[in-house]
Amino acid sequence: MSALGRHVLAELHGCRFDILNDLKKVEKIMINAALEAGAEVREFVFHKFSPQGVSGVVVISESHLAIHTWPELGYAAVDVFTCGEKVNPWDACNYLTEKFEAGEVVATEISRGQQIPQKAVVNL
Amino acid sequence: MSALGRHVLAELHGCRFDILNDLKKVEKIMINAALEAGAEVREFVFHKFSPQGVSGVVVISESHLAIHTWPELGYAAVDVFTCGEKVNPWDACNYLTEKFEAGEVVATEISRGQQIPQKAVVNL
Repeated sequence: MSALGRHVLAELHGCRFDILNDLKKVEKIMINAALEAGAEVREFVFHKFSPQGVSGVVVISESHLAIHTWPELGYAAVDVFTCGEKVNPWDACNYLTEKFEAGEVVATEISRGQQIPQKAVVNL
Repeated sequence: MSALGRHVLAELHGCRFDILNDLKKVEKIMINAALEAGAEVREFVFHKFSPQGVSGVVVISESHLAIHTWPELGYAAVDVFTCGEKVNPWDACNYLTEKFEAGEVVATEISRGQQIPQKAVVNL
C-alpha cells in the first residue's frame, strides 16, 4: 500500500525561551523551514498567547507545518506534514531544531493516507 | 511522565466528494468540530487547490485542527491536537467522521509533550 503523505511529529526540548515566546521570530522560522524543505507556502497564521506561548500554522501546497510553544518549559510541539516526492519533511524538522536551538529532539514519522484497496465489484 | 497534549491523527476514507471539494463546507465543518469539542477558535485559514482538494487549519486556544482532502479518493487526513482537560479531541474527530460521512476511519491518539525529568544540578 502506498501512502499519500509523510507526517513528522517532533518534540523539541531545551529551546530558547526568547525565541519560543516571540511571534514574529517563530513565524519567520516556520516559514523559512517550509522553504528550506522546498515547499510552496500558501497561507500562514500565528497567534500569541498571554502570558506566553505561540501557536501557528503554515499551509503549504504539500500540506502543512504546525507549532505550539511552551516557552516556560523550553518546549515546542512541531508537525511537518508533506505530500509528494519533492519535499522532505526532515529537512524542515532539522532546520527547526537548529533555529530553536533545541537541546533534545524526539521525532517520529507517520505515513498518512495509506490507500485502502478497493473491493472488486462483481456483477452477478 | 505527564503529557501536555493529545493528538488524534485520523484517516477518513469513503467521504463524499462534493463535501471534501467545497472550501466553505470544509471550513464550516472544521470550525464546528472545534466548537463541538468545547474549544475556543482563535484563527483559521483554508485553501482550495486546483483541480481539487482543500487544506485548512483552525488554531484554537487548546492547539489546532488540520485537514487535507483528496476528494477524488474520498479521503481526508485529519489532525486534532488539544491541550488541557476541558477539550476532548475525540469529540471533534467523531463530529468530523459524521459530517464528512466517512465510511471507514482509522484513528490513533499520540501524547505530545511528554515532560523530560530535569536533571539535578549538583554544585560540587
